[in-house]
Amino acid sequence: MPVLSEAASTPGTPTPDTSAVVDLGPASALSCRECGERFPLAPAFACTSCFGPLEAAYDLPLGDPEGLRRRIEAGPASIWRYAPLLPVPADVADKPNLAPGWTQLVKADRLAAELGVTGGLYVKDDSGNPTHSFKDRVVANAVEAARAFGFTTLSCSSTGNLAGAVGAAAARAGLRSCVFIPHDLEQGKVVMAAVYGGDVVGIEGTYDDVNRFCSELIGDPAGEGWGFVNVNLRPYYAEGSKTLAYEICEQLGWRLPDQLVVPIASGSQLTKIDKGLRELIATGLVEEKPYKIFGAQAAGCSPVSQAFKAGHEVVRPVRPDTIAKSLAIGNPADGPYVLDIARRTGGAVEDVSDPEIVDAIKLLARTEGIFAETAGGVTVGVTRKLIEAGALDPSLTTVVLNTGDGLKTLDAVAPTTGPTAIIRPNLDSFREAGLAS
Amino acid sequence: MPVLSEAASTPGTPTPDTSAVVDLGPASALSCRECGERFPLAPAFACTSCFGPLEAAYDLPLGDPEGLRRRIEAGPASIWRYAPLLPVPADVADKPNLAPGWTQLVKADRLAAELGVTGGLYVKDDSGNPTHSFKDRVVANAVEAARAFGFTTLSCSSTGNLAGAVGAAAARAGLRSCVFIPHDLEQGKVVMAAVYGGDVVGIEGTYDDVNRFCSELIGDPAGEGWGFVNVNLRPYYAEGSKTLAYEICEQLGWRLPDQLVVPIASGSQLTKIDKGLRELIATGLVEEKPYKIFGAQAAGCSPVSQAFKAGHEVVRPVRPDTIAKSLAIGNPADGPYVLDIARRTGGAVEDVSDPEIVDAIKLLARTEGIFAETAGGVTVGVTRKLIEAGALDPSLTTVVLNTGDGLKTLDAVAPTTGPTAIIRPNLDSFREAGLAS
Ligand SMILES: [Zn+2]
Ligand SMILES: [Zn+2]
Repeated sequence: MPVLSEAASTPGTPTPDTSAVVDLGPASALSCRECGERFPLAPAFACTSCFGPLEAAYDLPLGDPEGLRRRIEAGPASIWRYAPLLPVPADVADKPNLAPGWTQLVKADRLAAELGVTGGLYVKDDSGNPTHSFKDRVVANAVEAARAFGFTTLSCSSTGNLAGAVGAAAARAGLRSCVFIPHDLEQGKVVMAAVYGGDVVGIEGTYDDVNRFCSELIGDPAGEGWGFVNVNLRPYYAEGSKTLAYEICEQLGWRLPDQLVVPIASGSQLTKIDKGLRELIATGLVEEKPYKIFGAQAAGCSPVSQAFKAGHEVVRPVRPDTIAKSLAIGNPADGPYVLDIARRTGGAVEDVSDPEIVDAIKLLARTEGIFAETAGGVTVGVTRKLIEAGALDPSLTTVVLNTGDGLKTLDAVAPTTGPTAIIRPNLDSFREAGLAS
Repeated sequence: MPVLSEAASTPGTPTPDTSAVVDLGPASALSCRECGERFPLAPAFACTSCFGPLEAAYDLPLGDPEGLRRRIEAGPASIWRYAPLLPVPADVADKPNLAPGWTQLVKADRLAAELGVTGGLYVKDDSGNPTHSFKDRVVANAVEAARAFGFTTLSCSSTGNLAGAVGAAAARAGLRSCVFIPHDLEQGKVVMAAVYGGDVVGIEGTYDDVNRFCSELIGDPAGEGWGFVNVNLRPYYAEGSKTLAYEICEQLGWRLPDQLVVPIASGSQLTKIDKGLRELIATGLVEEKPYKIFGAQAAGCSPVSQAFKAGHEVVRPVRPDTIAKSLAIGNPADGPYVLDIARRTGGAVEDVSDPEIVDAIKLLARTEGIFAETAGGVTVGVTRKLIEAGALDPSLTTVVLNTGDGLKTLDAVAPTTGPTAIIRPNLDSFREAGLAS
């Protein structure tokens, strides 16, 4: 089993003698984002030369865009229709996995009217995934890498949602799972993680302690054969976010949108969406044209937004304090790449306050019947703010991401969402409430 | 607006002089399930001759099954691909609606292995719908009927889930909504109903009081222009369940399954699935062959199961007491039809206890990564029981319905679902827990 050899100087760096033949479809190597050095496919995440992050590199199917398009369109109603562009074997759709993706791209005409968007406004609604967030996309890619590397246990550190996504994905795939969470997590989130029958370990400590422990475990024999989806499988895991870009363009009729509004946690999702759009251009699946990517943060955790506005190229870490828990990463690893993409494409990074997030959740629910998690309130709220500031052009085709379901963050809206009236069961009482026809 | 005229002797019965031309696609009339009398399309639910329930009757597209199949396959990834078989206008997919359906039919090989099913076991997983239950299918059909009849307010009585489905559907469609719930509903369910911005009215009383009040409102000017999805729009609403049958057969490659296990609340869903299967045969979309339909109830609300076992043709009402709240209808309107279908097709009706429901939820989660609501635990549990009793043949292709998401009934599994271990953040503590590789 090609796990990290003890000869490797640093856990997470590729060993030079990985000889196993790994079938991850078009993925042909890992390459360093910083220095460009290439390594064989392996469960590794850091460059041996410069410690830069590794990402999957491909032999993309070039030269026959029509054939590729037909192949994709004839594929399954899941992310696996894009198997020719992902680090997965060609027969991935025949294996047991959750088959996430191909979620609705909602033409949001009523929201557009409220926001004054005339060029076409769309919400990519990822609450339709099997465990109701975009995490299913990335975890599904990690599962296939885990299988390819012979891992038998799927793992992660998590504050809740990822644990459930990993538990569900491992169950379907027939892998063991063992996930690590802070011991004092709310019961609902523990249930959602534990119901799939994998091991759920509460760690006495903060989420930082959980992460530190997992890093230790990866270098230790106690964790041998374990794939941590967002650590030693991260280069494959992260690629799953590209499918958001593929689906949006295909659902627009194989066309690039003009503007996209994407939430920022680690920044990986935004970075991979940009990568996905560039791959669609490179393979000829869409016609090249300019597009702008806008990043969205909560004001209570806005290091990238602050750096963007200050004109900085580096991101100064912050201590998160926001209701948008799924975006509360104070030191986002891909922050500098996000800044680069926003500036290169002519986009921006903006943030909204917690009350603005709640307002935006309700606005989206009231106009489109989509109940978003707090991260969806962040993107909708930022979209509104960017339009008001003139940074986002309302006459252009705009896609806003909702990455998860409001059911998971009920607490955000509960204090301000209740019945219109309480009445006695008779018509007089009803008429008094002023609600009659 | 063709609402109930005051000349009609009984609220809910069709007025003979409804003259408006209503475009509900292939639906051409309402017909009485008891006496067969036909009435023009209208917001009505009871036969004027015999007070039997009315249902939609069609001019089905006959004679060109290949053309119809191609038309469906080229349609949208939602229930609207079956518009030629539903009471909706042909351009329904172009209107703003939630576009539910086309949910996953999961080949459940690991569950099959546990249950000893060798002929192919599938789970139709309706948790993938916009508000995460099959209710989106029926409400979407009611919305189109509401539009056709010129209703401007969408309404229902509900114990929770239906209120959210109606609120979301009305928001997307741009209709007003006003839903009625018991005043003491759990906060989470109130939030899920109210977040879409429609009116939510708490009624001081039981769910029966809520229902009685709604019946009053339908006959009163205070409710003029109101479509109650499961009352005066019921004949259209109920048709939405047929799409489960259509999708299952198309996803099996236009083939009838041998056996289906369907939950019973009012019994309408099972009845309509049978209707849908028969329509597929009538239109030539599938080859005719025998199929068996099995009904599933919770032991704490099992009037149909009791009648089936006793050989009765009528169903004696019970007082529900079960964790499967979405199935807790003590006097199921379609009970006699369910008995007839189970007997005619060679199926059966069975029930499982609350602990068996919880076990089955966990079994499905552990083997397939699907977290089902309690109703899904009922169908999986009944499937296991029927196999053990020899009533369901494990060598035949079997489809089990999961009609909603476990997130909505967390309380059912919470008491018995928790972390495997709580440890300190170090490797020694981890090794002591016995979870290491
Ligand atoms: Zn490097
Ligand atoms: Zn009749």
